[in-house]
Formats: sequence, C-alpha cells, structure tokens
Amino acid sequence: MKFRIGIDISGGDFAPREILKGAFLAKKEFNHDIILIGPRDEISKEARRERVSLKDFEVIDAPEKITMDEQAAMSIRRKKNSSIVVGAEVLKEKKIDAFVSCGNTGAVVTATTLKAGLIEGVERPGIAVLFPTLKEISMLIDVGANINPKPLHLLQHGVMASLYYSVVFDKENPTVGLLNIGEEETKGSDFVKLVHKLFAASSLNFIGNLEAKDIFSGRCDCIVCDGFVGNVALKVTEGLADMTGKFLKGALGKDFLGKIGYLFMRRSLKKFKKSIDYAEHGGAPLLGVNGVVIIGHGRSSAYPVKNAVRVAIQELKRDLIGNIKGKIDAVCKGSEIQEILDT
Amino acid sequence: MKFRIGIDISGGDFAPREILKGAFLAKKEFNHDIILIGPRDEISKEARRERVSLKDFEVIDAPEKITMDEQAAMSIRRKKNSSIVVGAEVLKEKKIDAFVSCGNTGAVVTATTLKAGLIEGVERPGIAVLFPTLKEISMLIDVGANINPKPLHLLQHGVMASLYYSVVFDKENPTVGLLNIGEEETKGSDFVKLVHKLFAASSLNFIGNLEAKDIFSGRCDCIVCDGFVGNVALKVTEGLADMTGKFLKGALGKDFLGKIGYLFMRRSLKKFKKSIDYAEHGGAPLLGVNGVVIIGHGRSSAYPVKNAVRVAIQELKRDLIGNIKGKIDAVCKGSEIQEILDT
Repeated sequence: MKFRIGIDISGGDFAPREILKGAFLAKKEFNHDIILIGPRDEISKEARRERVSLKDFEVIDAPEKITMDEQAAMSIRRKKNSSIVVGAEVLKEKKIDAFVSCGNTGAVVTATTLKAGLIEGVERPGIAVLFPTLKEISMLIDVGANINPKPLHLLQHGVMASLYYSVVFDKENPTVGLLNIGEEETKGSDFVKLVHKLFAASSLNFIGNLEAKDIFSGRCDCIVCDGFVGNVALKVTEGLADMTGKFLKGALGKDFLGKIGYLFMRRSLKKFKKSIDYAEHGGAPLLGVNGVVIIGHGRSSAYPVKNAVRVAIQELKRDLIGNIKGKIDAVCKGSEIQEILDT
Repeated sequence: MKFRIGIDISGGDFAPREILKGAFLAKKEFNHDIILIGPRDEISKEARRERVSLKDFEVIDAPEKITMDEQAAMSIRRKKNSSIVVGAEVLKEKKIDAFVSCGNTGAVVTATTLKAGLIEGVERPGIAVLFPTLKEISMLIDVGANINPKPLHLLQHGVMASLYYSVVFDKENPTVGLLNIGEEETKGSDFVKLVHKLFAASSLNFIGNLEAKDIFSGRCDCIVCDGFVGNVALKVTEGLADMTGKFLKGALGKDFLGKIGYLFMRRSLKKFKKSIDYAEHGGAPLLGVNGVVIIGHGRSSAYPVKNAVRVAIQELKRDLIGNIKGKIDAVCKGSEIQEILDT
C-alpha cells in the first residue's frame, strides 16, 4: 500500500533547498507518494537546480511562510496560505496520510491539533523524541507540546509512547518510567507524586521514577515528563554537545600532539552529536493528533528529512493511530485511575 | 580574622577517608579553624593512618550516620547524633561559622533550615551551583532545595544569586536570566510567565528568558529556575558526560589509530568532565539559610572538599548573609512586585 506523505517545504533553517533534497531522497528510497507543500515557484526553481523532475511529485501551493520565532497561535490565524496551515488542512481532509515539518514547532502543534483534531479520548498532544542509548532506543515524551499539563495528560502520553514503542519497534510491554529528581516514590513535586500514583495504578509496564542522569542509560524504553521539563532536558543536551566541542578544541588545539588529538576527537564528537541528535533519527512524532505528524529539528538537512518520512511510514504501516484509539480509554478510564483523579 | 569551618566527615560516597583528607588539605592551605564533625573513633583512626596529628583540629563527636538515600525529614528526626544534625545544631549555636557537607542533600537542606532558620525575609532556601562556561563562571539556582516553589521564591533566589555573584566575584550588577523554553516573554508555563513579570518589575539586572541550550554559553551570570527543573538540567549534564565517554570508547577503541585517538580523548574528556562538575569547583552554596552552608557532591574526593571550604571562606569574608539581609526585602517587597503577586 502506498501512503501519501506531505512535506512542509518552507520549514526549517535550511528550507527550501535541504527539505526538497530530503523529499527527493525519500521518494527514491521509499517510493511512497510525496506531496510537496510550499511556494510552487520556489519548488520549481529548486527542482530545476537539482535537475530533478517534478512529474513524480504532487505540489500543493502554499506561498506564505511562518518563521521559526513567530508566535504560534497568531501566525496560524494570519497566514492561512502558509505551508504549515495548508499542510494541517490537507491532513484533516485526508488528502495526505502524514505531515512532516521542520518548521516552527508551536505552529505545527497548534495548526495540526486545531485542524485534524485529537484522537478520541486524548486530551493533549505530546511531542516524543527518539534517541539511542547505551542499549536500545529510548523515547522521551513530552518535550514541549504541553507545558501546563494536568496529571492525566502525562498518563496519556505514557500510553501513547508505550503503544508507539510496541507497535513500531515490535517490543511487547515496553517499560515506562517517570522523569523525577529521585528514584523513591516519595520524591518530587506534588504534581509528579500524583502522576506517579496514576502510572502505578495503570496497566502499563511502569518501572517507577527515573533520574535525569539515567535518560541515556537505556534503562527505560519510554520516559514521561511534562513538556517544560522535557524541553529543558533536551536543550541541555544540545548545549552541552556544542560546548564539549568548543572546550576540547580550546584545551587541546595548542601543541602538535594536541592538534592531532583534536582531529581524532572532532570526527568522533560529530558522530556522537549525530547519535544523540533526534533530528538525525527522523524527527519527533507528535502523538495524540488524529493524523500522523512528524516534527523535524529546525536545523534539519536532507537526510534527517528523509528519515522523518521513514518514521511517518512506520507509524502508518503499523496503524499507530488505530492502536491508540483502541487503547487510550481502556487504560485511562479505569476506576482506579478515576479514583486517584477525584481525590 | 579566622573563621570556624565545620566539616561533615560522614557525608558522601568516599567518607570518611576522602573527606578527612580534604579537611587536612583545607587546614594546610587556608589556615582557618577546621572542626571535624563525625564519629570520633573513625576520625582518630583515619588520622593515624594518614599520619596527621589532630591537635590542630577540634573534633565534635557525631556517631550516627544518615545514608545518601534516606528520606530527609525522617532521618533527621531519628538520628539526632548524626553529623548532619549535629552540624546544623552547632551552626545555629554559632560554634561554627560555616558547615560543609557532601552527605544526603535533602537532609542537609532540611536540618540546616530547621535549626539555623532562614535569613529574615527569605521564604525558601535554594541550592546554587557554580560552573565554568565558555566565558565566565555562571550560577544556576535552584537545583533541588525547593521543588514546589511559589513565584516569589524564584525572585528571592535571583536576588540571592545576584548578591553572591557581585560580592564573591566582585562584579557589579551581574546579569540574571530566567530558564525557559523560549526567549520571548510570552513563552513558558503560566508559572514561569508570572515569574518573568516579577523579575521584569524588580531592580535586578534582568536580561529575560534563557533557553537551556544557552546555560553553558556564559551569556548570563545567574540563571534562575524551579528546583525540579534545575535538578533535571544538572543531572542530564552528568548523565551525558558519562555517556560521552562510553560512546567514544565504543566508537573508537577498535583499531590501532582509534585506540590512540581514544587515549587522547580520555584525558581531555576527564578534564572536561571536571570542568563542568560543580563539585570540583567547591560544591553548591545553599542560599537563604541563616548560616553559611556548602553542599558538596556525593562523589567528592579530597580536592572538591577542600574547594568547598574555600567557597565557604569566600562567603564569610564578603559577609554574604549580611548582604542578603540588607537587600532581600528592598527588592522583593516593592509595591510593583506586591501588585503582581496580588493579581
């Protein structure tokens, strides 16, 4: 079965060139239908430049652009012909099966949630990032879609992440952990303590609290936290990876041996930075929206864009949304859960 | 003037040996009075082993031990003769001018807050960490003392950090930033937006929101956040530093050139890990308690312990507590601040 994957050509620091290159790579590698959403004239111009024929692609014209730092709600109200709003619209109308964007995260979350709506039973969407650890891949949800969450939202994010992990990675009963400042269940803010109770009462394979130093240990498949905390955790890793390189260059680049050492290191550090960079692995699935949405990193070049298309196809093949529909209420509307929420 | 620095000999993973070694180093280097607080018999035994005479040290016997993972409130109620409770007690009685502990952080915060009390006007203590950046040293407050904070607590933490930075580092009007998930003032949770208003209305040198990726950039002297978020940010850096080493070893250690590269890297990575490890720089000042308290990392060896004593002496020399007393209400009880809090 062929899926129809819409790609936002205007989103990201290297748009439109790298995004289009990624779209061409994705077409070649996966051979699903790729729908290019962006300014038609720019798309044509870039295609000529790359000597790629557009006959295998559908183009949906979306001349307006939402920049990376525009306020989300305002921008989607004002720019109805932007690639993000048009993409959300055609997702709702089922003209595409999935929407991939490396543009303004807030605008993508808001537009797709408003247009396509949420899966029945889901109260808030969550952005999940996938990253390699010392063992297997782990997921962290939410990294910024929902920054004033209620406890139930975190349980729902846990359910969706667990389903993602089991259907996409074929792992039965993946482990779910709660990001906290200590492992004991008495640890953490009042909010997190309540969330802990919800998870403990659920049917998920909950392994309890997980400290932030263990995020990369691979001890846990799906790590749940509120969007503010998750965003901070994610961006600290970005900042630290950048600083590691600069520090090592400063510390080593002085004498001959140091320079050789630095050359070795630079190569490996680049590899390491890529390995912890979720963008390289195909972007971040936005879970909870009634349509497959993948958010790429703003700095994405062609390969990450192609990988994001791969992630979208995986979700579609395994019918993640159907799975979430079938399970979300069963886990979150149990009487034990309700009792905890009512107290 | 000689200060009296009390050191918790039982606290930390390498207690009592490394802590005592640190105490001996501190005596030699700074020549202030060092008071050893812990089990007298163990202290004597270790001193003999190290061939150090105890005649230059006062020993306060505290035979009980609070372990690293004991619940804070319970442990200090039950173990009145522990080094942490005894240390807090003698701090209150002004038998020591400062207390240095690498033990259970929660127990140190709770015991010193209960015994010595808070500085008049301060509502909650905060743990500040000092770390080097690409430019100067930066401070992050709070990293875990106060995990259910009110907006005013964060403003107070900002005031204390700013005073610390100006009196200890001799920098006039240090910059203060709020850790957030975006730079615009419209960003963040409802809680953080309110905190932003308080800072903007205060007389601090507030430069606005700061993203987590910029923590290590040196763009801001004092970075304020709630204790839960700060703890996550701090521990992500620890986890990532550990993982960097393991990853690079795995990626490189295979062929001959790779092995050479790894050797270079290991040396530099150790240096880097030390440079971002606040423990090496002398531990974390607990600000707001009516007495100088420095919390060392649980993994502290002798040098970090000695450095923590240095930090304590700096605070005492510059009379940080007197400075906080004189300024906290002036900044936090202004009519503009009250108006924001009342709405």
